[in-house]
Amino acid sequence: MKRLLIADLMKSEGPRDEVTIQGWVRTRRDSKTFFFLEVNDGSCLKSMQVVVNEDATGYADSKPIATGASVTVVGKLVPSQGKGQMWEIQASSLEMLGAADDSFPLQKKRHSNEYLREIAHLRPRTNLYGAVFRIRSKLAFAIHRFFNDRQFFYVHTPIVTASDCEGAGELFRVSTLDPKNPPLTEEGEVDSAQDFFGRSTYLTVSGQLEGETYATALGNIYTFGPTFRAENSHTSRHASEFWMIEPEMAFCDLAGDMDLAEEFVKSVIEEVMETCKDDLQLFFNFVDKELKQRLEFVLSRPFKRVTYTEAVDILLASGKKFENKVEWGVNLQSEHERYLTEEHFKSPVTLYDYPKTLKPFYMRANDDGKTVAAMDVLVPGIGEIVGGSQREERLELLLENMKAHGISEEDYWWYVDLRKYGSVPHAGFGLGFERLLMFITGVGNIRDVIPYPRTPGHAEF
Amino acid sequence: MKRLLIADLMKSEGPRDEVTIQGWVRTRRDSKTFFFLEVNDGSCLKSMQVVVNEDATGYADSKPIATGASVTVVGKLVPSQGKGQMWEIQASSLEMLGAADDSFPLQKKRHSNEYLREIAHLRPRTNLYGAVFRIRSKLAFAIHRFFNDRQFFYVHTPIVTASDCEGAGELFRVSTLDPKNPPLTEEGEVDSAQDFFGRSTYLTVSGQLEGETYATALGNIYTFGPTFRAENSHTSRHASEFWMIEPEMAFCDLAGDMDLAEEFVKSVIEEVMETCKDDLQLFFNFVDKELKQRLEFVLSRPFKRVTYTEAVDILLASGKKFENKVEWGVNLQSEHERYLTEEHFKSPVTLYDYPKTLKPFYMRANDDGKTVAAMDVLVPGIGEIVGGSQREERLELLLENMKAHGISEEDYWWYVDLRKYGSVPHAGFGLGFERLLMFITGVGNIRDVIPYPRTPGHAEF
Repeated sequence: MKRLLIADLMKSEGPRDEVTIQGWVRTRRDSKTFFFLEVNDGSCLKSMQVVVNEDATGYADSKPIATGASVTVVGKLVPSQGKGQMWEIQASSLEMLGAADDSFPLQKKRHSNEYLREIAHLRPRTNLYGAVFRIRSKLAFAIHRFFNDRQFFYVHTPIVTASDCEGAGELFRVSTLDPKNPPLTEEGEVDSAQDFFGRSTYLTVSGQLEGETYATALGNIYTFGPTFRAENSHTSRHASEFWMIEPEMAFCDLAGDMDLAEEFVKSVIEEVMETCKDDLQLFFNFVDKELKQRLEFVLSRPFKRVTYTEAVDILLASGKKFENKVEWGVNLQSEHERYLTEEHFKSPVTLYDYPKTLKPFYMRANDDGKTVAAMDVLVPGIGEIVGGSQREERLELLLENMKAHGISEEDYWWYVDLRKYGSVPHAGFGLGFERLLMFITGVGNIRDVIPYPRTPGHAEF
Repeated sequence: MKRLLIADLMKSEGPRDEVTIQGWVRTRRDSKTFFFLEVNDGSCLKSMQVVVNEDATGYADSKPIATGASVTVVGKLVPSQGKGQMWEIQASSLEMLGAADDSFPLQKKRHSNEYLREIAHLRPRTNLYGAVFRIRSKLAFAIHRFFNDRQFFYVHTPIVTASDCEGAGELFRVSTLDPKNPPLTEEGEVDSAQDFFGRSTYLTVSGQLEGETYATALGNIYTFGPTFRAENSHTSRHASEFWMIEPEMAFCDLAGDMDLAEEFVKSVIEEVMETCKDDLQLFFNFVDKELKQRLEFVLSRPFKRVTYTEAVDILLASGKKFENKVEWGVNLQSEHERYLTEEHFKSPVTLYDYPKTLKPFYMRANDDGKTVAAMDVLVPGIGEIVGGSQREERLELLLENMKAHGISEEDYWWYVDLRKYGSVPHAGFGLGFERLLMFITGVGNIRDVIPYPRTPGHAEF
């Protein structure tokens, strides 16, 4: 008989004569002539309570069925007497598929997140991580749906790239040369012309520039793929490999960009709150008591839009002692962002029009000569979650910026071409998928929202 | 006034008084007191015909508006007199946003695919590539929807990995060590312990093994992400970087795996045929006259299921002269696959139960002692499109296989753990996204369905 998902059975509208489930035993409680199993199949947070009486087929061989074992249960779906569940199964037969002995690391007791990272291959079998990764999946789908509904096209920008515009120090090199005896040029340099791609190649840090080439052809596009940072950061918010979403819109200015970012963040949070009710409740109850309020808060009001200059004035007038000095022209630090979102505005904040000295070459110069059409969305508890800008579409100004930033026109001829042929105002942003997931779940460490996190010194599994 | 998408205007149910479009000029045709523009905004294959009379605002400055220029058009949407279009715009105003001079490479004449690869940043502005990449996007969404509808969870398996189970020769190395002066161990070897991740790391060739760890926790999962092959292949069907879909199902055997593969291929083709009618028509008309028939054919009948052994018998009995000799135990070649799908069965074919000597260590041994529970789906014109198997869930047999294949148990302790703790029958497959897209569009070269293809010697843009 076909296996049914516990997620579906939990929503059953009435009792059922015979159902089959398959899953893993979370707990077993024995009585004299019967025992209870909590069986989880990963389809939802809830486990199905199974009552196994001594007349059930397989009862006699059921001794080894313990926490972690996999089972097939056939039986009646009946209203449950127990608290917190509508339905349970009265087993007519029970079969163990795979045993789990005492060495199974996920026994009933609570484990630290640090310990669970060491068994990242098993942690999705726990309530917390099962919920994290179901929400991760639903969030990814919500993102695709958001863009698909709005006629944005999904573009796969390359992972391996010869561009190194963000500074070679932060890049991972990709090569097939023998690391011990690489071929050398006559000058004694490593001869990258003999490497697989005929040049030096790296892992991408962003698909934006390639994304712009597609936005200026298809109109509205987005990327959603892995990106890489070879930074030696050991914080709870940085990973060396993470997924990023980068929409890019032709015929769009900074205001339209800020509109999209706000609509995007709200829409996907709303969808996840709708589709992941049970899983989210776990985080509301056990991870962060203020999480629910914070999410509802983000949904319920417009993000506050403030220029960087106004924000600096607010910070200077706040009378707060900050560790890092505030003055016009410096990057705002986490403490400043928190003050703005959590204390001053008590709201997500979109900061815009940043000093041009703080921003990369491709951002559009404002008429004031000092700022560029950049924007960051800051949210309470996390800080920056979105960073974007209108792009410089004016050829002369772009070329000046490239020169000022030491970017070679020769390497980026194709990017420059977009300004030579039918150039259009366009804008976009980047959003770290894991940051968003941390914001939605309240999970404090990025290592705990990535199946197999890659950080300095760590590439296990 | 807000810009409207040409895709939406083309479906307008009646004339409209004032609409704004923005896009790129494909062609301009001049008359004495008016001219026509074909404007494309990338939202769909069709361009909007715009009629600009001399009383339109901007007419006087419209001289430089030529192929490739970007424009804003405001006007009335009215029924078109011209053939092949429902609607056209009578411009009340026209503004050029960005010029394109004679050096714009996409002038009216037809260009070869090879030439267009050299301007891959502009080729999505052509009809053919616009259509390819809109379909690519819709196909990706269809895939996510397929799995989401069936309660499969999307898992992001790692891109950077320390696993090299498919043989180091085919892998890209990922490193931050100085290639010229890498740190050495006392034995004079490159000291990978000093590399970024504290070990040698590579780009993934498959997320399957990690996917199995999630299937045995969440039940049904899939991956959809980039994978890499450092093979020096210069064929039209191989790229060094491509996207792969890998579903994995717990409590599933080979028959269930074959069912899913067939349902998957049919379902996503059906959705694309539904959502990309206009774009697909271009391929039916101009790329492959038999394409439509081939797709309908795949949808209309069950895939033929044949064991490898039966297939060998059919090939031996065929009386055909093959270049590569057929005998039990050898890999079938493209010519054999084509014979089976195109001549013998005239249908997609799912081959299964392959000789174990041909297949990797993780496939489940059949009781005959000679074959494993592997399957490949072959389709006419392309050959193998899906490769999958039931996985060996029996600890002893897996360990034997690993030993026989020279796979270290120590490196794959976590994979082995799945067979120690609640092991379950499980199965899955891999499908190359670009191969599927080639099958659907009839495009013959994988370089033409990837925005920025990576192949040996090529990592431009």
